[in-house]
Amino acid sequence: MERITVTLGERSYPITIAAGLFNDPASFMPVKAGDQVMLVTNQTLAPLYLNKVRSVLEQAGVRVDQVILPDGEQYKSLSVLNEVFSALLEKPHGRDTTLIALGGGVVGDLTGFAAASYQRGVRFIQVPTTLLSQVDSSVGGKTAVNHPLGKNMIGAFYQPASVVVDVDCLRTLPARELSSGLAEVIKYGIILDADFFVWLENNIDALLALDITALSYCIRRCCELKAEVVAADEHEHGMRALLNLGHTYGHAIEAAMGYGNWLHGEAIAAGMVMACYTAHRLGQFSLQDIERVKSLLVRAGLPVSGPQEMTAESYLPHMMRDKKVLAGELRLVLPTAVGQSEVRKGVPHDMVLASIEDCRVP
Amino acid sequence: MERITVTLGERSYPITIAAGLFNDPASFMPVKAGDQVMLVTNQTLAPLYLNKVRSVLEQAGVRVDQVILPDGEQYKSLSVLNEVFSALLEKPHGRDTTLIALGGGVVGDLTGFAAASYQRGVRFIQVPTTLLSQVDSSVGGKTAVNHPLGKNMIGAFYQPASVVVDVDCLRTLPARELSSGLAEVIKYGIILDADFFVWLENNIDALLALDITALSYCIRRCCELKAEVVAADEHEHGMRALLNLGHTYGHAIEAAMGYGNWLHGEAIAAGMVMACYTAHRLGQFSLQDIERVKSLLVRAGLPVSGPQEMTAESYLPHMMRDKKVLAGELRLVLPTAVGQSEVRKGVPHDMVLASIEDCRVP
Repeated sequence: MERITVTLGERSYPITIAAGLFNDPASFMPVKAGDQVMLVTNQTLAPLYLNKVRSVLEQAGVRVDQVILPDGEQYKSLSVLNEVFSALLEKPHGRDTTLIALGGGVVGDLTGFAAASYQRGVRFIQVPTTLLSQVDSSVGGKTAVNHPLGKNMIGAFYQPASVVVDVDCLRTLPARELSSGLAEVIKYGIILDADFFVWLENNIDALLALDITALSYCIRRCCELKAEVVAADEHEHGMRALLNLGHTYGHAIEAAMGYGNWLHGEAIAAGMVMACYTAHRLGQFSLQDIERVKSLLVRAGLPVSGPQEMTAESYLPHMMRDKKVLAGELRLVLPTAVGQSEVRKGVPHDMVLASIEDCRVP
Repeated sequence: MERITVTLGERSYPITIAAGLFNDPASFMPVKAGDQVMLVTNQTLAPLYLNKVRSVLEQAGVRVDQVILPDGEQYKSLSVLNEVFSALLEKPHGRDTTLIALGGGVVGDLTGFAAASYQRGVRFIQVPTTLLSQVDSSVGGKTAVNHPLGKNMIGAFYQPASVVVDVDCLRTLPARELSSGLAEVIKYGIILDADFFVWLENNIDALLALDITALSYCIRRCCELKAEVVAADEHEHGMRALLNLGHTYGHAIEAAMGYGNWLHGEAIAAGMVMACYTAHRLGQFSLQDIERVKSLLVRAGLPVSGPQEMTAESYLPHMMRDKKVLAGELRLVLPTAVGQSEVRKGVPHDMVLASIEDCRVP
């Protein structure tokens, strides 16, 4: 078992990573006998894990209700959020309830925001079932739903009481989703940790083959890196923005293509390559390093260019809605080397367009 | 000019109370030249104050957009909230924008929650235009929208950067709304300050006659009392619950009658009398004190019993959805004397029903 603490004063919380955690009610601490819990999951995951988690909790004397959401990024909306509130109020659940998010990033982000705003804040536990959510969205307290005009535009910084990562879940994850998670994994190497990037170059095949030891180490290292960043900058006034490498470009792809048609990790993979080319055009990232990044992404089963149907110009209006835009000025996360990155403002728009074009050339 | 500080560490903020504040852009500090602002108001207030505030800000070099909401408690909803997000995203407004809530409790609560959740939190300023919002909802950081199954069930604790109370607004306030605000004013006397209750007994007619000196003192004293409570217990783990005197009963009236048919203060006035009778049945509040409370409420133009069409039994299902309910147990705020109150759990439901019945008898 791997265990990390996200250090945020009285809001600190543990991340537990192991195979088989769903078999033990103690995994879901601080929930205890007599507590009221709302399990939130989706239609794809419910047949796989809902009854297992539900019965483990019920046998421990926990009162469990459930909401099953439709599966997909397009359901990460205010109206689906309202269905969670309705389920909570129909029972009813009091201010002492606990929401458990059993699922990937969509379930986790939406349930987290439901917990942040139901009765102005109730306890919640993240139980991420995808690699993407295990290494990224379940750690750090960013919760949100989408708006038709922008991804994650409505949300809160709200920390879970605990994060429970049962690595066994990855056995049922579609290969495309595993690859999508690896995009965020590779991101940590590029922005923060050159040694981890090398480790990934040496172990990407073991990860794709679902080697539990490799996966557990990989998830722990990503959570550690993210936990350090979040502890230093919970509300993204500074270095936390580095975690958004590739996201300003990638969100444009997701928004233009319709949420869910490109998986988040796929869009971020292409976006990271675009950011690398922008950095190269600024003279701060070599073509050799771009090739290392692209090669690892390709081995992980990820795209290294954007959708054919999107012109470079079509990215900009979406990019200007990025949450990092300040006073109408784009701020981009750009690598300065493999394992190092910075937030850069004032990059000329024509340079951004040119680096998006760079990704089209094979 | 009266000025109070709500003391909450780095989230401390000033409340400024005076006539004529809308004529001076400095009233809206920390907003300054070059800033982007979204003014949120409603259809009733827009013709009275929107152009005035807008032009004062624009003359000071502030970039101002506006959203005009329909007027009424029934519009304090997730779907109207979403209209504010749409307006912000259409411009678009960045993370450095400021929302200004120009209106009563509905505008303030909804705009505050929009500010709390737009891009996970942007700055906002409360500009309350009703007595109710000046003494209550604009102070303390409670923001929320309603759900069809319960009032204020979706929201956040989120503090404004500043509260601007222009007492001149009360000149355009309908008499019934002024009375509604006086219900919350009288509440402060009952729960916390016997001297202020006596002051109200001596000055209620001056308040109803819109004497600016009396109103300014009254608003300042209420804000002071609330600021002390909020500073001691921001997230309502303890004494802040006292501010809910009458609200558990009153919310049942609002929910059963349909939001907006009984004004909030009217429902709370009847609810406070019910709480007094419950306290009396528990042997902790005299009939003489009940008469003092009822007499002051009647002089303020407020009801002292609930709607004829509601049976006592019909209150309970609504009361059990109160945010103070813990582990299925009702917790009531009850006076122990004029100027003193406590949170009490374990009050038998038949005693609650009987005290609701007590209010029917003239």
